[in-house]
Amino acid sequence: MTRIAICAPARPITRDLADAVSALVAREMADVTLNFHAQCFVEDGHFAGNDAARLAALLDCANDPGTDAVWIARGGYGSNRIAAEAVTRLNAAASSKTFLGYSDGGYLLAALYRAGIGRPVHGPIVVDMVRDGGEAAILRSVRFMAGMDGADLCEPSLDSCPRVAFNLTTLAILAGTSLMPDLAGHVVMVEEVAEHLYAIDRLFFTLMPHLSGIAGLRLGRISCVPENDRPFGHNAEQIARDWCARAGVPFLGFADIGHDADNKVVPFGLASPASAP
Amino acid sequence: MTRIAICAPARPITRDLADAVSALVAREMADVTLNFHAQCFVEDGHFAGNDAARLAALLDCANDPGTDAVWIARGGYGSNRIAAEAVTRLNAAASSKTFLGYSDGGYLLAALYRAGIGRPVHGPIVVDMVRDGGEAAILRSVRFMAGMDGADLCEPSLDSCPRVAFNLTTLAILAGTSLMPDLAGHVVMVEEVAEHLYAIDRLFFTLMPHLSGIAGLRLGRISCVPENDRPFGHNAEQIARDWCARAGVPFLGFADIGHDADNKVVPFGLASPASAP
Repeated sequence: MTRIAICAPARPITRDLADAVSALVAREMADVTLNFHAQCFVEDGHFAGNDAARLAALLDCANDPGTDAVWIARGGYGSNRIAAEAVTRLNAAASSKTFLGYSDGGYLLAALYRAGIGRPVHGPIVVDMVRDGGEAAILRSVRFMAGMDGADLCEPSLDSCPRVAFNLTTLAILAGTSLMPDLAGHVVMVEEVAEHLYAIDRLFFTLMPHLSGIAGLRLGRISCVPENDRPFGHNAEQIARDWCARAGVPFLGFADIGHDADNKVVPFGLASPASAP
Repeated sequence: MTRIAICAPARPITRDLADAVSALVAREMADVTLNFHAQCFVEDGHFAGNDAARLAALLDCANDPGTDAVWIARGGYGSNRIAAEAVTRLNAAASSKTFLGYSDGGYLLAALYRAGIGRPVHGPIVVDMVRDGGEAAILRSVRFMAGMDGADLCEPSLDSCPRVAFNLTTLAILAGTSLMPDLAGHVVMVEEVAEHLYAIDRLFFTLMPHLSGIAGLRLGRISCVPENDRPFGHNAEQIARDWCARAGVPFLGFADIGHDADNKVVPFGLASPASAP
């Protein structure tokens, strides 16, 4: 039995969504239980509760010895406001857990990875259920958390190199803060959604000084780019290659991650798919 | 006679706009000449020419001993791509000049200030002519560059403390890069336009670790905030006060700067209005 606790460090979800995900998982995976923390459904302005409420729920889930994995319900914005304090208050039970999320959840994954706590994993989250193909995305993450073989779940480029995966904005924002892990020697994968190409260029500009010494960069999907009043003049791949060249970082090609239903699982560091609980 | 050279390190302007600004200045200030570099009108995708063309024009203007001030035509995005190299190629003639701009121009102002070259000044740019009240904004900058008394031109809080002013995104993006000056002991003023409040919060999160040791923060106008699908729950002042408190930085109140026609002049450092050429 794999017991997965779900909290919302950023924005809330609805009970209908939780019910739909619970029904899917109950139908497909009898040996998995999902426990949605009540905080998932709290609304407080932009957030799923204020900082204290979101932090308390995260600690409830992470520090519970009866839980195997913590799954992030939804991104949006907010994990950065609680991630630094969260890692100082995690107990021994948290250290053996998988923490799975992406997008805004990257702030928490970064803080955990920096602190060496648990197994941070990039992958689909509860709110991905609403996408076309969302059921497959949900089951990809749940199967990974349940320790199933990862060959068809994980990003295909994983090899002997430690790796991380982040939303580009999230990584650019946390670089230079107390959440930033040492990424020397890592393959760094980045993806983005709904940002203009000039903003993508700007994000690489601000990020690359923090990625010196990485093994290389892989570009996930840069999707839903808004139309600007004029074309930028370079596409996302050209932008990534340009900034890699300027920084002396190898551009290693693409990564099968993004804000979409095909978003693959990327366990941080050297954890292999087979080492899942 | 004050001779002002104008180039476009980011996006281009039209000849009609240049003609309108030239006519205004000719009518109001007989002792000022404006020289628009031909590069101001070049279009190359998003940019006013590629990096090499924009850099060359900036160096033409800055290194010309027959010019007293360099005025940035327009923001948008792009100065960051050439600012680091520009400061390595400026000559003695550049050192005595005023460099005036804001928004994306902040990348260049930062690089100059860090390098101790010339007099970086935050203030209205050529493209502000199109705003309601744009003529007053244009004349504010031109009068400052012409050495006129600054009491009604400058941001009113200027005192014995060194100070800088930036667009919030621009400062957050350049913090942690080779463009970032040492701002210890400075009053730092920030303004923003057309960003969601959650993004404002996120920008302060990523910026504040780079502002430890500043004298304090002043909040310019946070304008044209897009409506989100839900209210953020805190206004811009509350956000700024919160992040100042978390960082141990004094919140000093407001600053009369912003993406609008009232945007006031802020000479960087301790330069007083009366020291203008």
